[in-house]
Amino acid sequence: MDAFYSDNITNALKNDPPGEWMPYIPEDCIRLSSGFPAPSLVPVKQLKESIGQLLDVEQDLPLHYLGTPKMDELKQQIIERLDQREMKFTMDEVLVTAGACQAIDLIARIFVDEETVVAVESPTYMEALEIYKNYTDRFIEIPMDEDGLQTERFAKLLADRKSKGLPLPQLLYTIPTFQNPTGTTLTEERRRHLLELADTYDFLIIEDDAYGELFFHDQPKTLKAWDKANRVLYVGSFSKVIAPGLRIGWVSATKEIIEKLFWFKKDLDHPFAQAVMSNYLRQYPLNKRLSLIQESYKEKCSLMKDALADYMPDSVSWYVPRGGYFVWVKLPGEDTSELLEQATKKGVSFLPGKHFFLDERDGREWLRLSFSYEDSTAIVEGVKKLSEVVCNR
Amino acid sequence: MDAFYSDNITNALKNDPPGEWMPYIPEDCIRLSSGFPAPSLVPVKQLKESIGQLLDVEQDLPLHYLGTPKMDELKQQIIERLDQREMKFTMDEVLVTAGACQAIDLIARIFVDEETVVAVESPTYMEALEIYKNYTDRFIEIPMDEDGLQTERFAKLLADRKSKGLPLPQLLYTIPTFQNPTGTTLTEERRRHLLELADTYDFLIIEDDAYGELFFHDQPKTLKAWDKANRVLYVGSFSKVIAPGLRIGWVSATKEIIEKLFWFKKDLDHPFAQAVMSNYLRQYPLNKRLSLIQESYKEKCSLMKDALADYMPDSVSWYVPRGGYFVWVKLPGEDTSELLEQATKKGVSFLPGKHFFLDERDGREWLRLSFSYEDSTAIVEGVKKLSEVVCNR
Repeated sequence: MDAFYSDNITNALKNDPPGEWMPYIPEDCIRLSSGFPAPSLVPVKQLKESIGQLLDVEQDLPLHYLGTPKMDELKQQIIERLDQREMKFTMDEVLVTAGACQAIDLIARIFVDEETVVAVESPTYMEALEIYKNYTDRFIEIPMDEDGLQTERFAKLLADRKSKGLPLPQLLYTIPTFQNPTGTTLTEERRRHLLELADTYDFLIIEDDAYGELFFHDQPKTLKAWDKANRVLYVGSFSKVIAPGLRIGWVSATKEIIEKLFWFKKDLDHPFAQAVMSNYLRQYPLNKRLSLIQESYKEKCSLMKDALADYMPDSVSWYVPRGGYFVWVKLPGEDTSELLEQATKKGVSFLPGKHFFLDERDGREWLRLSFSYEDSTAIVEGVKKLSEVVCNR
Repeated sequence: MDAFYSDNITNALKNDPPGEWMPYIPEDCIRLSSGFPAPSLVPVKQLKESIGQLLDVEQDLPLHYLGTPKMDELKQQIIERLDQREMKFTMDEVLVTAGACQAIDLIARIFVDEETVVAVESPTYMEALEIYKNYTDRFIEIPMDEDGLQTERFAKLLADRKSKGLPLPQLLYTIPTFQNPTGTTLTEERRRHLLELADTYDFLIIEDDAYGELFFHDQPKTLKAWDKANRVLYVGSFSKVIAPGLRIGWVSATKEIIEKLFWFKKDLDHPFAQAVMSNYLRQYPLNKRLSLIQESYKEKCSLMKDALADYMPDSVSWYVPRGGYFVWVKLPGEDTSELLEQATKKGVSFLPGKHFFLDERDGREWLRLSFSYEDSTAIVEGVKKLSEVVCNR
């Protein structure tokens, strides 16, 4: 059988299978591990109502391969929203994808081969790492601090590699706003610095902005909005603000790039899911919804921080997020994988830091808590339980 | 910019962009070109009702990344249906995909590189050709007749290549039942011959069975049901029997292959679409629905054949399908691309044969008519119009 497989996938198969990293978490845990939206914030009723209305009006149209005008309308709605955030795109500069993950995969497909060096934040989104590893094993890791990726260190690293004649990255993958897993936001100064580096060292930037709408106070200006040289491919998603199960994300980039991404998007489009999203957005404008969910996540984040302060030993510290879903917690001297086993026995889960690093050892003392999924009571209860486990070790 | 693109896609980009082949067809035409299900046969009301019920019962579950039991239930439903058709699979031998196209693409992804020789029917499904061309430009074409692909000629071709030391195919792509575009069905004798050839010459078979449920009299036993040596990867779809816009298809193969296909499926799953399909199938069993749509397509096919017999000149001939969506028509001496321009001016469309061949010239005298999309009156009217255009040339 082995003789049949394509040479193109030999390297990819040397990695762990997808999802293999995911730790076992018993059903009855308080899930501070889940990067899901809160069940109460998924607009079930409105979606139901909106789907009914869509099918009444359009009948079979959104159930065919093509034909519903809603697919173009969704693109238009995305463009309008981006426009409000100082990003200008035309219809042929947007590709709607099955979530941000498909967008990232398509970008990797057209830009990454085994010679390509990809720069990533350390830590970063594990699903994205998994994708890039299907195409290359050449990575450069850029350390993070509370202000996002450290551009000064990245600059040094680039200069150093250049002087030594080492290969430079062609691509940087970053989540500059409310990052997964650290919750950090890149400062404006660093954003500009990063774009300068991209110009100087000639690389492209994938800006994953899945959490960008979920700010508690101010919304940072995206890298794309600063980007004059078309170095940024902007990836967006409705998963965190509406519902992941519909699988709607997108890439915005130059027409040339969008055409090439589309070339390899062989699941065709998703007329029904896209029409549902478009109709829902028309009936329930995003801005209104955003203020509701921002308020809720802000409050839950605040409760989580307070609970951490109240219950955790003094040695434990965390980054304070200004939006998004996550709090990134440091437990000096701890092995958070071992901790997880004990924590789940006590009924609370989190994600050990190791899953977010290329070298697992780098994440040993860290863990990611999510305040998105559970309700306020469970969040406080969960942090309390976790703190008890920590204190008893 | 060009320097950034992956070497892996250089060859693919030498082809025409996806969908470029599609001829322009004015809005007001009778669409005998459309391989869509009939609007009246798309179960709009039942789907609406079923979605409402699903969301009432499961609430936010099918709108998350994971969590709805319906995703496993859908697999189970697929397995049960395949079991009724003499094909035995377990849960880890089925991968649900975004339509048959994604299944075909994933298969190509893991089995086809630029060295791989792919054998295809000539003519064959143009979207599949487009997919394989992203991975290789080495094809072997097997001529078709009214009984499907000519296994005798394929056998000769294989023997000939072997004796000359030419590379042999690792993969055969076939639609043995109610083929697109020819509507033909491979005879049982040829099916067995094909599997023998696969054993002798050591190749895998992709059996695309998108139309297999749409029989008018008897349902042919699939290649997979004859397959003792696990040479067949079975691709199925709900697009032709329920609704393409939900994008639900699947691959059934060995566990080993399914694991590798899943590795590269980076759109993740589609929880909502899959839950909708599963819930719908539970409420409205497929067997009941199938007899309704089989009857309807049979009748429309019959009307199309009668109209062809009534209105076309004697020189024109066609293959008589025993199921599916299509009638494949030969017009000796004609150039069906030129004919299309005139036909659309008269208000009727079809697909010129050239789109279904690797070498367009081979399809010059052929065209594909679809009886699936339009209603009975329009079918007769459309064939009449087309015949008039043919008679006046």
